[in-house]
Amino acid sequence: MKRVDEARRAYRQGDPDAAARAHEMNRIAAEEPHEQERGKYLSDAVLGASDGIVTTFAVVAGVTGAALSPTIVLILGLANLLGDGLSMAAGTYLGERSEVDYQQKERERELWEVRHFPEGERAEVREIYRKKGLSGEVLEQVVEAITADEERWVETMMREELEIIEERKDPLRAGLTTFVSFLVGGAIPLVAYILAGLFPALAAHGFWASVVITALAMFTVGSMRSIVIHKPWHRAGLEMLAVGGLAAVAAYGVGYFLRGLAS
Amino acid sequence: MKRVDEARRAYRQGDPDAAARAHEMNRIAAEEPHEQERGKYLSDAVLGASDGIVTTFAVVAGVTGAALSPTIVLILGLANLLGDGLSMAAGTYLGERSEVDYQQKERERELWEVRHFPEGERAEVREIYRKKGLSGEVLEQVVEAITADEERWVETMMREELEIIEERKDPLRAGLTTFVSFLVGGAIPLVAYILAGLFPALAAHGFWASVVITALAMFTVGSMRSIVIHKPWHRAGLEMLAVGGLAAVAAYGVGYFLRGLAS
Repeated sequence: MKRVDEARRAYRQGDPDAAARAHEMNRIAAEEPHEQERGKYLSDAVLGASDGIVTTFAVVAGVTGAALSPTIVLILGLANLLGDGLSMAAGTYLGERSEVDYQQKERERELWEVRHFPEGERAEVREIYRKKGLSGEVLEQVVEAITADEERWVETMMREELEIIEERKDPLRAGLTTFVSFLVGGAIPLVAYILAGLFPALAAHGFWASVVITALAMFTVGSMRSIVIHKPWHRAGLEMLAVGGLAAVAAYGVGYFLRGLAS
Repeated sequence: MKRVDEARRAYRQGDPDAAARAHEMNRIAAEEPHEQERGKYLSDAVLGASDGIVTTFAVVAGVTGAALSPTIVLILGLANLLGDGLSMAAGTYLGERSEVDYQQKERERELWEVRHFPEGERAEVREIYRKKGLSGEVLEQVVEAITADEERWVETMMREELEIIEERKDPLRAGLTTFVSFLVGGAIPLVAYILAGLFPALAAHGFWASVVITALAMFTVGSMRSIVIHKPWHRAGLEMLAVGGLAAVAAYGVGYFLRGLAS
């Protein structure tokens, strides 16, 4: 990304040679292992941590709004941490596994069709490349080349007909990564709450200590999302802070108003 | 899917004509608007409802485990419903928007490269098709055809180089769908809890009434996931029941044991 910006800048500055060099560097970089590869489990980690911190803090805020004791804040915060963390992790695991199963099944289906109805499948390849602007002898030769290799043929059907780009990800590892990072993220508001309880000067303000520390952590975790969600870090950080704040204010508000109704 | 199974069955039964007919039907069906199109917001709805029911019930279980009053179960259940629902919805909205932005930016980048460094980009197209088994004159003609049209050229780079298949989804609609379905799903355990309170025979068993109704609802919502997650409905239903049950048991357990420590 950076190198393309460099190329654009050089081009605008009337230095086409520098632009060409930067562009070439970019081309080489693009052939290195894909950025998404590196981010395969990183995205589970970052998203898990985000979710953990937002939902745990919403529980802390709701309980505080309902004017329950600090002990209950911790009990329910921990209960939510474990319960939600497990459900997120299991959801990630099952989701990834079903995606892997689905892609494998579609691949087997295409392979079966290629083996048993080669003519129909060949016609589909022809149609795909006709739409890309080929015709006549060239079209036939392309169809010939693609269908000469079973793997290549199936791959073409997957991408062009089914629009499936396969991703190789271990469901179990994705689930575990989600669980651990959810626990780590979700522990932040609770640890802040406990720490505040240890210092007499802060003890009466456990909730506010938790607010400040959690806000900083939300911004930090949010800005880390920029590694996987294609967004400038400061914007990702602020957005996360806004989402987490909104959730906490809503939970606090419900707790506060319903407590009034209940008493 | 069904028609392919039909084709396979007919083929195995030694009726290639019936198999060919079924296969042809399948080919026609595949040209109809893609199944994923229909499921674009359906997946947000189903996933939102699943998440709502699981997390709200985990809160109900945690509070019950900590032996707090039914009023507090409802207050905290509602606080969590609104807080988590808002954060889920905002997360969906921001995630979709950043995905749309990213794809648009990558498309603009490729377009810029195609316009300013056509030779480098043409070499990339050549490389892509060389890997598909083309060479010599045919390869050159394919490169010529693809690069003759700017739109087609950029599309090829998006799919083959960047592995991006663009999805047109309205972020706002995705976020709202998530919010509403989260509220509907999450309301189920709470409504069950309230209803139980209205019947004297059940009043002492509010939690268990909520357990039974929630379990049925979890299975139902879970089996609806089979529409979007490529899984048989009964398996999707049972898996969701297992995930929700696990989360609830964990939350109940933490509430129960920590209450013991606290008192």
